[in-house]
Amino acid sequence: MIKVSIFYPNGDDIEFDVNYYRQQHFPLVRSKLGAALLDDAIEVGICGAHTGEIPAFAAAGHLYFESVEAFQTAFAPHMKAIQSDLPNYTNARPLLQVSEVVNTKESDHA
Amino acid sequence: MIKVSIFYPNGDDIEFDVNYYRQQHFPLVRSKLGAALLDDAIEVGICGAHTGEIPAFAAAGHLYFESVEAFQTAFAPHMKAIQSDLPNYTNARPLLQVSEVVNTKESDHA
Repeated sequence: MIKVSIFYPNGDDIEFDVNYYRQQHFPLVRSKLGAALLDDAIEVGICGAHTGEIPAFAAAGHLYFESVEAFQTAFAPHMKAIQSDLPNYTNARPLLQVSEVVNTKESDHA
Repeated sequence: MIKVSIFYPNGDDIEFDVNYYRQQHFPLVRSKLGAALLDDAIEVGICGAHTGEIPAFAAAGHLYFESVEAFQTAFAPHMKAIQSDLPNYTNARPLLQVSEVVNTKESDHA
């Protein structure tokens, strides 16, 4: 399984509307990606390594797919519709990363 | 629920031993944190926004706790033991972020 993470880097002038992201943007993303989207997650930065230290990311969204190909196939036709919603919830410039999810729950002796 | 993310920034000279991280480091972390650790996850970077683009993070580990306090209480006594294992799997300088996990599965009308 792969995970597409969209990180929203923090900064003094960064605004992020969590309610819009959760209630409007994620439903839009889900409706566009359909069954290829296996799971999703949202988190909002609290702090860095120490209490009170500004977190590197104001927020992040994560989308899970079976493979990179499944992501690309599902995302490509809707990229503009999804990306054009960005100014409605943040002025941050998102950082995207595609990662392989490592199975931490089973031993190597599967 | 909160999520403690440890990101390992990528670079030309960055090495990351995924097998050690998964098979040695994570079991160590779990044994130290005990029941306060609700869940965990590991991912390995594949690419950035485009295929072939180097991912921002070589790898990342995520630890879930009920609260920031639960994390701090569980982690503090074992910080040195956990952190001193770092050179055994990477030469990257980890970036730590604490985030609030946003519930994306239920409506606001709960």
